Amino acid sequence: MKKIINAVDTVVTDALTGLAAAHPELRVDLDTRVVYRANAPRPGKVGLVSGGGSGHEPLHAGFVGYGMLDAACPGEIFTSPVPDQIVEATTAVGGGAGVLHIVKNYTGDVLNFEMAAELCADEGVEVARVLVDDDVAVRDSLYTAGRRGTGATLFVEKIAGALAEEGAPLAEVAAIGNEVNARSRSFGVALSSCTTPAAGKPTFELAEGEVELGIGIHGEPGRSRAPAGTARELVRVAMDALQAHLPLSGDTLVLVNGMGGTPLIELYIAFAEVDAYLREHGATAARSLVGNYVTSLDMQGFSVSVCTLTDELTRLWDAPVRTPGLRWGP
Amino acid sequence: MKKIINAVDTVVTDALTGLAAAHPELRVDLDTRVVYRANAPRPGKVGLVSGGGSGHEPLHAGFVGYGMLDAACPGEIFTSPVPDQIVEATTAVGGGAGVLHIVKNYTGDVLNFEMAAELCADEGVEVARVLVDDDVAVRDSLYTAGRRGTGATLFVEKIAGALAEEGAPLAEVAAIGNEVNARSRSFGVALSSCTTPAAGKPTFELAEGEVELGIGIHGEPGRSRAPAGTARELVRVAMDALQAHLPLSGDTLVLVNGMGGTPLIELYIAFAEVDAYLREHGATAARSLVGNYVTSLDMQGFSVSVCTLTDELTRLWDAPVRTPGLRWGP
Repeated sequence: MKKIINAVDTVVTDALTGLAAAHPELRVDLDTRVVYRANAPRPGKVGLVSGGGSGHEPLHAGFVGYGMLDAACPGEIFTSPVPDQIVEATTAVGGGAGVLHIVKNYTGDVLNFEMAAELCADEGVEVARVLVDDDVAVRDSLYTAGRRGTGATLFVEKIAGALAEEGAPLAEVAAIGNEVNARSRSFGVALSSCTTPAAGKPTFELAEGEVELGIGIHGEPGRSRAPAGTARELVRVAMDALQAHLPLSGDTLVLVNGMGGTPLIELYIAFAEVDAYLREHGATAARSLVGNYVTSLDMQGFSVSVCTLTDELTRLWDAPVRTPGLRWGP
Repeated sequence: MKKIINAVDTVVTDALTGLAAAHPELRVDLDTRVVYRANAPRPGKVGLVSGGGSGHEPLHAGFVGYGMLDAACPGEIFTSPVPDQIVEATTAVGGGAGVLHIVKNYTGDVLNFEMAAELCADEGVEVARVLVDDDVAVRDSLYTAGRRGTGATLFVEKIAGALAEEGAPLAEVAAIGNEVNARSRSFGVALSSCTTPAAGKPTFELAEGEVELGIGIHGEPGRSRAPAGTARELVRVAMDALQAHLPLSGDTLVLVNGMGGTPLIELYIAFAEVDAYLREHGATAARSLVGNYVTSLDMQGFSVSVCTLTDELTRLWDAPVRTPGLRWGP
């Protein structure tokens, strides 16, 4: 294993130190391990808190800022944040209008966010939750009952964040987050394993010329292994899997996401194939993102996430956002 | 070799097809292989054209847009664009105020941009050039007489692009580009080789636990090989090399750049060490970028680029930019 780290047990703290130095517009509490917008809490605004294991950067801390999250709770690599951390973040960003937890569907995350929500309720902070479970690859998996939460988390954080910024009440912000999740599906393909610093060796082995179809973002097994194939073939496997769960038509929002070790030139090749597939099926990539957004350390591969848009979702997607990882508008 | 491609000889065209589909605000000419701002040429504005081998994405095509480039000419992987391509781009974006070529110092790029500039002069388009040669690792190299051009290309494109947007004349835009280059230095470290699609195997081999210090962005050899070491040790090698060429003091602009296969969490760890180093030496990372910007396909590793700032350079760096790869401001 070769990695740009100082020691296995300081990876998350060292990265947060760098995040704080690079982004003075964030407030990073290294003791409690919470990343805040510098101006949180904003009175009267619903607070948005997400979090999960580290190793998926820029998710989640890279999406803290205007129009998206108020705070993020990074756990250790591929390990849920602890309830105390989530309570700290939630109570700090509660501006009197309640707090939305955006939780990817992994057993540890679900339990710890639930426990934190109960503790926050005891302190008088109202908490609602959106559970993201967009990954159609497997029914249950190593760390999950039900579908896994992956790329659509970005869609939920962006769109719910935009609505919260407009001053919508907690119930509405939660409802639109749930709507985005219901309208979104994802599927991932791995060309290589990731290597966690703690393990020091690849989580799994793939033969030369073999890919894992339906990979999870922690290297959990997918549906099957297959010969590597062309970009077109790999994208078609992913899109057929999405299409089986989410009839594709009209305007869609598309994320072609790199797993962390895949160069951008390959992701644009994949996007060309996704775009062609959508047009063949009477749908349009009306909005898109191509890049490394929901990663799995150094894994090579990609995932496709698609959300079927409404006018309201498009409007909220287009609304201004200013975070380290996503930025547009005035 | 496992890559998300359709065929070795369609990599660049397929990626440009994806770029066009993802970014309707760009105009991508697949025949001539030029990527334009949709509204180019802008009468009275100096046009900015850059280009070079593909495989360094988002450089250069990802930096076409308001406040940066008017056009980019992507060559084949790690291969200079041809003169015809550069002529096409230059004459198309010339708005009557002349065109600046931003050229990385590699022999092929230098020759082809020179030939194109002569052809454009024959057609009455005035062309000036900024030659970027920021990489302090080696004096000459495989593809270069003199220092190589790497990460500072992004600084030159951004800052010269901002000045051109304000309506400055060609001589001033070229002068500020040259000033940025003179004030900038870079140094890279590879943890692994890249693999070009055409070769299908790594360009070079590194032993487990070994890194290449002073790597070039095409996998050209650096200064030496060394044991991998910690992030702190690797960053200190890079910063000591920079410091020997560029006395570090006052406000600096810092790019901690991933080579394409390195996850963001490791780049933030590297940035924390760069920031600490600068502070120890009485300098400040007043502005910074952390991410994959000037890549080398799937290579794992990082480079550090530093530019010593003036008030004017800071102002131009902060000016609005709207490109696929870099975006801020209104």
